[in-house]
Amino acid sequence: MAGNSIGKLFRVTSFGESHGPAIGCVVDGCPPGLPIDVRVVQRALDRRRPRVVGAVSQRSEPDAVEILSGVFDGRSTGQPIALLIRNRDVRWLDYSRIDQLFRPGHAEYTYWHKYGINDHRGGGRASARETAVRVAAGAIASSWLGAGHGISVSAWLSRIGTLELPFRDASDLAASPRFVADARLEPSVEALLADYRDSGDSVGAEVAIAIRLPAPLAERAGDWGHDWQGLLGHALMGVNAVKAVEFDEAEDALQIRVAVKPTPSVHLPRRTIDKAGRPAVLMTRGKRDPCIGIRAVPVLEAMVWLSLADMVLRERAVHAGALTGGD
Amino acid sequence: MAGNSIGKLFRVTSFGESHGPAIGCVVDGCPPGLPIDVRVVQRALDRRRPRVVGAVSQRSEPDAVEILSGVFDGRSTGQPIALLIRNRDVRWLDYSRIDQLFRPGHAEYTYWHKYGINDHRGGGRASARETAVRVAAGAIASSWLGAGHGISVSAWLSRIGTLELPFRDASDLAASPRFVADARLEPSVEALLADYRDSGDSVGAEVAIAIRLPAPLAERAGDWGHDWQGLLGHALMGVNAVKAVEFDEAEDALQIRVAVKPTPSVHLPRRTIDKAGRPAVLMTRGKRDPCIGIRAVPVLEAMVWLSLADMVLRERAVHAGALTGGD
Amino acid sequence: MAGNSIGKLFRVTSFGESHGPAIGCVVDGCPPGLPIDVRVVQRALDRRRPRVVGAVSQRSEPDAVEILSGVFDGRSTGQPIALLIRNRDVRWLDYSRIDQLFRPGHAEYTYWHKYGINDHRGGGRASARETAVRVAAGAIASSWLGAGHGISVSAWLSRIGTLELPFRDASDLAASPRFVADARLEPSVEALLADYRDSGDSVGAEVAIAIRLPAPLAERAGDWGHDWQGLLGHALMGVNAVKAVEFDEAEDALQIRVAVKPTPSVHLPRRTIDKAGRPAVLMTRGKRDPCIGIRAVPVLEAMVWLSLADMVLRERAVHAGALTGGD
Amino acid sequence: MAGNSIGKLFRVTSFGESHGPAIGCVVDGCPPGLPIDVRVVQRALDRRRPRVVGAVSQRSEPDAVEILSGVFDGRSTGQPIALLIRNRDVRWLDYSRIDQLFRPGHAEYTYWHKYGINDHRGGGRASARETAVRVAAGAIASSWLGAGHGISVSAWLSRIGTLELPFRDASDLAASPRFVADARLEPSVEALLADYRDSGDSVGAEVAIAIRLPAPLAERAGDWGHDWQGLLGHALMGVNAVKAVEFDEAEDALQIRVAVKPTPSVHLPRRTIDKAGRPAVLMTRGKRDPCIGIRAVPVLEAMVWLSLADMVLRERAVHAGALTGGD
Repeated sequence: MAGNSIGKLFRVTSFGESHGPAIGCVVDGCPPGLPIDVRVVQRALDRRRPRVVGAVSQRSEPDAVEILSGVFDGRSTGQPIALLIRNRDVRWLDYSRIDQLFRPGHAEYTYWHKYGINDHRGGGRASARETAVRVAAGAIASSWLGAGHGISVSAWLSRIGTLELPFRDASDLAASPRFVADARLEPSVEALLADYRDSGDSVGAEVAIAIRLPAPLAERAGDWGHDWQGLLGHALMGVNAVKAVEFDEAEDALQIRVAVKPTPSVHLPRRTIDKAGRPAVLMTRGKRDPCIGIRAVPVLEAMVWLSLADMVLRERAVHAGALTGGD
Repeated sequence: MAGNSIGKLFRVTSFGESHGPAIGCVVDGCPPGLPIDVRVVQRALDRRRPRVVGAVSQRSEPDAVEILSGVFDGRSTGQPIALLIRNRDVRWLDYSRIDQLFRPGHAEYTYWHKYGINDHRGGGRASARETAVRVAAGAIASSWLGAGHGISVSAWLSRIGTLELPFRDASDLAASPRFVADARLEPSVEALLADYRDSGDSVGAEVAIAIRLPAPLAERAGDWGHDWQGLLGHALMGVNAVKAVEFDEAEDALQIRVAVKPTPSVHLPRRTIDKAGRPAVLMTRGKRDPCIGIRAVPVLEAMVWLSLADMVLRERAVHAGALTGGD
Repeated sequence: MAGNSIGKLFRVTSFGESHGPAIGCVVDGCPPGLPIDVRVVQRALDRRRPRVVGAVSQRSEPDAVEILSGVFDGRSTGQPIALLIRNRDVRWLDYSRIDQLFRPGHAEYTYWHKYGINDHRGGGRASARETAVRVAAGAIASSWLGAGHGISVSAWLSRIGTLELPFRDASDLAASPRFVADARLEPSVEALLADYRDSGDSVGAEVAIAIRLPAPLAERAGDWGHDWQGLLGHALMGVNAVKAVEFDEAEDALQIRVAVKPTPSVHLPRRTIDKAGRPAVLMTRGKRDPCIGIRAVPVLEAMVWLSLADMVLRERAVHAGALTGGD
Repeated sequence: MAGNSIGKLFRVTSFGESHGPAIGCVVDGCPPGLPIDVRVVQRALDRRRPRVVGAVSQRSEPDAVEILSGVFDGRSTGQPIALLIRNRDVRWLDYSRIDQLFRPGHAEYTYWHKYGINDHRGGGRASARETAVRVAAGAIASSWLGAGHGISVSAWLSRIGTLELPFRDASDLAASPRFVADARLEPSVEALLADYRDSGDSVGAEVAIAIRLPAPLAERAGDWGHDWQGLLGHALMGVNAVKAVEFDEAEDALQIRVAVKPTPSVHLPRRTIDKAGRPAVLMTRGKRDPCIGIRAVPVLEAMVWLSLADMVLRERAVHAGALTGGD
């Protein structure tokens, strides 16, 4: 989410720091009458959570989501839907030793410079944890658009380091803990991650997202043209660690490829400065995820759903009679 | 708040229904480094709460506010500030008997027509309770602008029915449970309210708001011109039960007068329709506040603070060096 | 227009100073396929123009409007519609003598203070002339909404000074050069204006606006609730010289009353300051319109049409199948 | 420009079709007091124009820009700046023969499907011509930010087909008609273009953009973080023919690489459908530019300036005292 809000009509405003009391968001603009099931939102969050020790961060946040408003008797009311995720695993002390240092590649130096405070509790707002909120909001959008409208969005890990991971099978993807769409490649991914974990280094990745739209909407999408690209570019480029976005119009789908940078905080010693501006060496242990690109898969998919929801509402405003549903 | 969000740079997005699990808001755009004290926000909420049985609603919601994000070590971080107020006094059953009826003057009929559901739990989103959120957000804005910038906003009950209530003294206003700015008139107000309460009817009121700005900002306000008025008009006209807004430029202050309608739900029998469209008689007991104008005073004052905060940020964008503070 | 843009989906951005080369606007969000006739826009502008010497400003600007984009073969294309009105009657010299003075009640002092320049050419941007643009844009909105949707907006001069001017007849209003809705009162209005013109003073007025909506939309308007009011409040309060706005929900219509201040620049000598800050006496001759409220009638009506267009588009986004037309 | 507007505080709204009467834009939010020279804007437009027959389109539009508002005595007034470019070279007849056909790769089919009209006059709104407006608006932004603030933005053609074109020298770039930053490679580019022109085919390209910011702003940019990327992604991805955007943070600059698709309309025969849906063969002659990437260079540079202007204004709002200038 570039900034703290995204969308014009289907608008999500997020809040919360990774180690504050809670993170959450307000989804405003969701049409009334849609079935909203908190378990669907929870499932989306669970899918995002680290499932295999070592592959991704070992922080075992349960990410239990609560719907605070905008849903009554299992349906959206048309009013703002507030989602809340309490942070239960607040281990501030773990971070206390780096209180006086800045981690390179994190936003901390500029935070400190700007605010005169160094919220050293896990990267604060810029942390990957904030992305949980996007996944939750995306689940609201996909609940609406993904049901009976012929719209599908499918994201998978398409490359890790130099290992290409082409799409093979939707059920492989559904079963994969690392969003690999070809089960035969899973062991190679695991081996590669183990290597990086052992060496304490991290690795970049690429996420592919295939979007299918029903014919009338696809035609309109052609008309949205660069609007479409501009909005998706905004949504995807605003995600933490994203480095590049590429659009491909295939015969029956739009495919997007998103390059994701290596995780910035690793076990290696790095040079930084302390608060007095003196050089220092930092050996971070805060995060152990060698490939943030894995965790980015459901986040990027959620960003696409959110963008689609906004675009469909805009389209309905201009063309009464465009995609109906939920009202 | 017209809609669920207000402001362009100092932007508040509210959520929550009066009888759902919680109400709250996200304040985005608050400059970093401002002292934010949850007790100040709580005090603003307490000031809004019914204090005298009979004068206003007897619903004894404690309105305990929690700051979920955007504040660290007592200061704003520049990130979204989420405020949460749990609804503890959820007495749905009290409303169950009017499940099949629509209360005239409430938004219920159109809600039901639109959504096919009748969220009969106390007026839902359109309820006066939602205004608590605005008061809380306004306390953030006034914490910033009201401290050391020479800006003051003062609102009082300036008329109830035909009883004029001119400003006399700031300390009278501070001490008054009903925002009357002349202590000598308090008994008349109380007597008048008692009459209305006894008869089960309700009465309109007028709220006056005096805004004082430091010279340079006042000059710029002149330049903002109708922008100023347009934004304030938006903010004030969007408040529940407001009927009219009038602007007066006095020598050293802008004064606004806001007419507030009588409370719509009273003890009198009223004609309505049931869900089958048949005429019915409704004897409401849900609310007993004979003069919603009293409760509107801190809400309207908060809306002015929120508008000022947004205008000051816009002004700073255009004129680097305009009102500083908090960073 | 509070600021230079109004509307979220039906969005108008205006530009131009009264004595620069041109004024105009861009109307973005107009649905495609609507019949757009430049003559209808021109007629709206002509209706706004001074028609009776003496009653209103004698400046004889022809206000010829040109459509630069967004219309092809007489229909909107769905792309931005740019409207341009060249300023032909640029008599800068008339204003040269007041180059060193500031006119009281105009925004000039703050302009000068802010920008270090005094664009003394007729009040610059704050001039009533800018309102021509709103009338032109409003004609686009009313072309769409006023045709076959059962929506009507009717504005008239409902008071001048203390002379009340109730609505009597739509054909009286259509024929009146001063937007008086009862032809029998026209002579009294003329006499009153002559008095003010002779004395060189000016007089306040009130404009009434009656809005009728088809039943389904009216119900939804009830649901928009204070959104409706907030948006209209924004649109109307942002008009030059507006002082107060009052809403009344009658049985079958919403009626709004707008109080308009007396014209600020008159023939009377006024105290002001010169650029050195020294007191000076200013005898303005730049404008001779004793009652700006007359000219405000079509402007305020246009602002209501623009607000309605934006609200209908928002409504269509949320409720696919709301008011159709034009596509 | 994704959609017709871009920016929140420095906001540009564009209008106009390539073969309508005019194209233009309104730049709202430009701080007052900035020197604005119409010749600087004109020079930016001239730089974008085809200069070498054959390399780019032979359409010889003079692109004479007029400033309609917002500038007085050579300085911005703080009011909207409207820019107008009349289309003088309107040769509709050239396009008449393809009236009944749709050009593949253009947005025409969806336009026709959506609007029931086929504005066959040169691609309408989606045409590359609309990008002139962005270049003009970008010149306003760069006039402000590029003068004395230590900000520089430099774009060049970094690849055409498979021919890599690294940066060598700023003066080479300034002198190059095709935005090649190494004069020694110019002949190879010319030869390659000649080949494509002869074969009637077109070729993709890559544009590199190097952004340098003064230290305090660069630090803040780090804090904007993905906001920065999201906004730039939005601005760049929304440009016609852009296919991919990649961000690189070098030691002292941010570098962006933008992949641009081959020109869609070429001399080759292509399969399309006519309005009755029947297959047809289209041999287009409307455009002869074998590499749209060349023309994209100043457009993409302009989009970066516009994004920076918006970001600086937002930054000033949050941090009074951030980059000053122009007021």
